Amino acid sequence: MKFASLKNGRDGALIVVDKKLQHAVEVPGIAATLLQALENWTEVERKLELVYGSINFKDKIAEYTETMTADMKVRHREVDVPAYQQAMKELSETLENGRVTNTFELNVSDLAAALPRAPQFVDGSAYLAHVERVRRARGAEMPPSFLHDPLMYQAVSDSFLAPTEPIRMADEAWGIDFESEVGVVTDDVPMGVTPTEAAKHIKLVLLINDVSLRNLIPEELAKGFGFLQGKPRSTLAPVAVTPDELGDAWKDGKVHLPLVTHLNGKLFGEPNAGVDMQFNFPQLIAHTAKTRPLAAGSIVGSGTVANQDESKGSSCLAEKRVLEIIKTGKPSTPFMKFGDQVRIEMLDKAGASIFGAIEQTVEKYKG
Amino acid sequence: MKFASLKNGRDGALIVVDKKLQHAVEVPGIAATLLQALENWTEVERKLELVYGSINFKDKIAEYTETMTADMKVRHREVDVPAYQQAMKELSETLENGRVTNTFELNVSDLAAALPRAPQFVDGSAYLAHVERVRRARGAEMPPSFLHDPLMYQAVSDSFLAPTEPIRMADEAWGIDFESEVGVVTDDVPMGVTPTEAAKHIKLVLLINDVSLRNLIPEELAKGFGFLQGKPRSTLAPVAVTPDELGDAWKDGKVHLPLVTHLNGKLFGEPNAGVDMQFNFPQLIAHTAKTRPLAAGSIVGSGTVANQDESKGSSCLAEKRVLEIIKTGKPSTPFMKFGDQVRIEMLDKAGASIFGAIEQTVEKYKG
Repeated sequence: MKFASLKNGRDGALIVVDKKLQHAVEVPGIAATLLQALENWTEVERKLELVYGSINFKDKIAEYTETMTADMKVRHREVDVPAYQQAMKELSETLENGRVTNTFELNVSDLAAALPRAPQFVDGSAYLAHVERVRRARGAEMPPSFLHDPLMYQAVSDSFLAPTEPIRMADEAWGIDFESEVGVVTDDVPMGVTPTEAAKHIKLVLLINDVSLRNLIPEELAKGFGFLQGKPRSTLAPVAVTPDELGDAWKDGKVHLPLVTHLNGKLFGEPNAGVDMQFNFPQLIAHTAKTRPLAAGSIVGSGTVANQDESKGSSCLAEKRVLEIIKTGKPSTPFMKFGDQVRIEMLDKAGASIFGAIEQTVEKYKG
Repeated sequence: MKFASLKNGRDGALIVVDKKLQHAVEVPGIAATLLQALENWTEVERKLELVYGSINFKDKIAEYTETMTADMKVRHREVDVPAYQQAMKELSETLENGRVTNTFELNVSDLAAALPRAPQFVDGSAYLAHVERVRRARGAEMPPSFLHDPLMYQAVSDSFLAPTEPIRMADEAWGIDFESEVGVVTDDVPMGVTPTEAAKHIKLVLLINDVSLRNLIPEELAKGFGFLQGKPRSTLAPVAVTPDELGDAWKDGKVHLPLVTHLNGKLFGEPNAGVDMQFNFPQLIAHTAKTRPLAAGSIVGSGTVANQDESKGSSCLAEKRVLEIIKTGKPSTPFMKFGDQVRIEMLDKAGASIFGAIEQTVEKYKG
């Protein structure tokens, strides 16, 4: 299934989106918001599946009808009229039963973040290639414990930026950067779950732009209590999907597809999110849940996707700058300036966008 | 005004509580939850004030009536009958107009945390006496920047423990500790506010037990990204109050009253929350809001209340242990064991409890 949220209050209005990201329908009778759906997943899952089946069935039949019509024009006599009639009958029945009569065209500018606010966002640093590079630049070794003990932090989640909302910051000098990430959304996770149990609590997968202010971070981290000013609000891709939508790209608790980032229209990186991920999502959830339960709607992020293979490019400017420092002694790529644009997307094997794109411009915040 | 939340779903059911913490009333026609009230503060504030006035008026009149009745018995002829009649008339009108007809006795065991879940919890370390002592124990100096740059962290807020809910942990060896704190709750705070502007966004004051797992913290902080496992869910006192309830104890963005902690029934500490607070709440809010807005319902914590005057005792075990280490070379006070109980409370100048008490026992978590 695929879900998004129309801009509407703090939690948005839940819509079920078709597989192709073309049409959608509100489902107030099932759940008003995506958070509500996650909080009542066992009760609403089957109902949402019926709606999802219905809107995709409609698309499928529309396709079929189009083909049939074209076909009829060419070779009228060979048309399978009974099959066509049966398909149209089924379509009409499904629409009737599923009450999916009020679909509308999906328009990304009407969308809030897929989950406009979450009870919790914990972000990992599961791609050690990223961690190693950043440390190498300052001549530091990665501690060996990082191989078995996930590095994670509590992030802000009181509101997420919409997929095409500008990143508004008061000062370019803060070192504005993107971080392209994959994330999962859980239902209620009990304290103390094992990774095996944690896997069952993954209900949705989504994309995150973990906006980072690089020039505020070193001083902030030096204080010892983690990020606050250095990690402002993140952005979520338009659509969150159930793991089954990823087909066999969802395997071992990881998403085995390239995460594609463009900066100002130019390919910036396409590392595979399934490669070099030291801790999978069930492990990250279990790590977080060691001393507390996680409320339904909790988002667990992968951290900046990075592959050991440097030819795959990067998912953040900081890493590109680090590679430049290692090579030439100083960075040549600046952080984002007002007007710069980042686009983050993931395509399936047929080249279709799975989550829709995060596409944001950096703007001066004027208060 | 004073507010609490009945146990009811994830956000509780808002109740307005009388000044003496004896009676309360639900106000579904005004706001179903405290979070809803905070999200619509300008619309609901006046309505809530009428209800609050009404329930306290009722108490006041009941008192008056009682006195009058006793009085009448003694010296019948001197009773101010017209005043009595007028008071009863006003009471009846107020109850009628305010629709406060269904008050009930407040029972702490029916209460969830005052704000059962918050969109955000950021916690400060505003009492440098605490920071200095903890650092002194490991032979480290407090960086001079700590005098002008607040130390804060993003904390978990997907659910808070109810005021009398046990602290359930799987392992005593994690070093279970309490931290007695004061906190404020904001309405929507724009990005980039000054401390002066931030002060206007403080809508409520409350008490927090910031539960800490001391033996998990050093290794976690050494990783550099702050707390995750080391700071599990916190607890909130039964009642949150508007700053005016504190009278002149609310001054300069601080609460000038002792925060009283008892451990297993014995006084543990009573430092004054208005003394040695290096950054007041407006400054902590402004620090957080530098790079992002704060959603209504955000909780900003003071950090462990501590005075330079060591005779005031401590607000957490870690600090007491540090003082023991400084004096004798090793700590003699253990962290909390299963069965240990902590009580955190703040009394007004007349000795009445302002927020009700946090009173929690540590229990073994059994999954």
